[in-house]
Amino acid sequence: MFCGIDIGGTHISVGLVSSDGNIACSEMVQTRTVAGVEDMIDVLADVIFRLKKQSGSPLKGIGIGAPGGNYYEGTMVSPSNMKIKGIVPVVALFKKKFPDVPVYITNDANAAATGEKVYGAGKELTDFVVITLGTGLGSGFIVNGQIMYGANGMAGELGHTIAVEGGRQCKCGRRGCLERYVAAEGILITYREVCSEMGVVPSANTAEDIYSLAVKDDGPAKETFLRTGNTLGASLATMAMITAPSHIILFGGITNAGEYLLSPTRNSFEEHLLESFRNSIIIQRSAISEDNAAILGAAALACHAATAQPLQPLQPLQHNSKT
Amino acid sequence: MFCGIDIGGTHISVGLVSSDGNIACSEMVQTRTVAGVEDMIDVLADVIFRLKKQSGSPLKGIGIGAPGGNYYEGTMVSPSNMKIKGIVPVVALFKKKFPDVPVYITNDANAAATGEKVYGAGKELTDFVVITLGTGLGSGFIVNGQIMYGANGMAGELGHTIAVEGGRQCKCGRRGCLERYVAAEGILITYREVCSEMGVVPSANTAEDIYSLAVKDDGPAKETFLRTGNTLGASLATMAMITAPSHIILFGGITNAGEYLLSPTRNSFEEHLLESFRNSIIIQRSAISEDNAAILGAAALACHAATAQPLQPLQPLQHNSKT
Repeated sequence: MFCGIDIGGTHISVGLVSSDGNIACSEMVQTRTVAGVEDMIDVLADVIFRLKKQSGSPLKGIGIGAPGGNYYEGTMVSPSNMKIKGIVPVVALFKKKFPDVPVYITNDANAAATGEKVYGAGKELTDFVVITLGTGLGSGFIVNGQIMYGANGMAGELGHTIAVEGGRQCKCGRRGCLERYVAAEGILITYREVCSEMGVVPSANTAEDIYSLAVKDDGPAKETFLRTGNTLGASLATMAMITAPSHIILFGGITNAGEYLLSPTRNSFEEHLLESFRNSIIIQRSAISEDNAAILGAAALACHAATAQPLQPLQPLQHNSKT
Repeated sequence: MFCGIDIGGTHISVGLVSSDGNIACSEMVQTRTVAGVEDMIDVLADVIFRLKKQSGSPLKGIGIGAPGGNYYEGTMVSPSNMKIKGIVPVVALFKKKFPDVPVYITNDANAAATGEKVYGAGKELTDFVVITLGTGLGSGFIVNGQIMYGANGMAGELGHTIAVEGGRQCKCGRRGCLERYVAAEGILITYREVCSEMGVVPSANTAEDIYSLAVKDDGPAKETFLRTGNTLGASLATMAMITAPSHIILFGGITNAGEYLLSPTRNSFEEHLLESFRNSIIIQRSAISEDNAAILGAAALACHAATAQPLQPLQPLQHNSKT
């Protein structure tokens, strides 16, 4: 059994996962009910001890997905509604409670990518990307069969690459970040812009509302997804020409818009690609259910790290077989 | 001894390199003097046999850097002045001449990155990028200590990411590619645009001329490097937020412009970065001399692939030492 913990702004999910990817048991804690970081660790340790007793199996590793989770440093950025600022040494704190269990942390998007690699569509793939689309845009990269953490452990900030120079103000302090256009709030801003241009009174307040309108053939709603897809496709093309993934797996609430979003995304993606890359990279939705993904991804991190074998050096496919 | 071969549009360089990175002997062949691909292989095989005899050492591997070189497939795109179109199975052809020697091929930028990893500034680094700036812009990525080839073997097409939507026409058929702004011809176009805006008659015909003018405090020349650096820095920031390298190593003729180019590049780079990435990624020029780099890079490819050890799985730095 591996334990997966997903720390989010509204709630923290904890679950025990078997090596074939089944969640044996799980619990949820409201983030606002924990008083601070030390309290969070106490609460979560209690949950884990309880779940472990319930499952009756030994705990082989703990994986944590969290905002700003840094694999190398073992740290995360404190959830904003805990009112504690700054960087928290989560792994070290967990190790005090579980000295004999390996503990790993990474950010949500890397956890999602590891989930796909260990339990999902990425099992047989060596080079792919998972894009998480929700309140923000995250990206987790598998390169040569391993997560690409980068030198600082923070690779995959695609959501904060500049999509529109001098564009919309982002919470990060800069302007024009991709996630200000294609994550939940960004889509809503685009919708209001489109309504204003078309002289229509906006009638949607969430990305889901816009989807419901698009299904009813609403002009501004469809135009909103078209623009969103155009922007997303262009950025995915830039990313793909740098990293050359075989698959781009989209995950998260926004992807419920289905082809309303995927179709313009694919069109813009192909348009922005170098010819030699065209019609070769698959953009698809994740098959892992959203309810399970956070726990599975975090548990996969522990499973992947604890069971990883040394990687053989990359070799050309056929030509040197004689030597 | 490893043999490094660099196939370029104007000439092909061949050299034998010792494992400590010294070029023992080398020869150059004019690309236009070879009649076709089969002839090229014959000519190069003769050169290699001659050099091998000269050095008196056994040949442990052949590495080839070539335009469109694909590591996995063992192929390259035929140099345009050979008047043979399409994809050439270079590795298979070399293997006929050297059945007992491993043969590897990759593109110029990956060869440059491998050169830095094996013989240059990247020896101790696990995550860095080499950007080659000349007639085009190439990029080679080392991720987790290995070259990132991507699923199709063609990762690192940073030069063809769209820097300016709807911008300058590129030979690839699309508009606004980065290399149309920051490689040799692109810089010249920018210079002419600047001169036209300033009502000045252009007096430079090459990127080197523009550098010479900049040294003499010429306004349009300095403005040209400023704009070039702005565009390059923005694209490097996008790349860096995706891949999180510790170092960006610039290589090639254009980098002779030194701080005229590097200073605005660094400024624009930092401006476009997410705060957590700022002031942490080093942009520097390569220390490998341009004369030797092509041969060294290609030989390094063979050395790296032939001597590579299995990679240990990535582990967090300190936290799990007890387990």
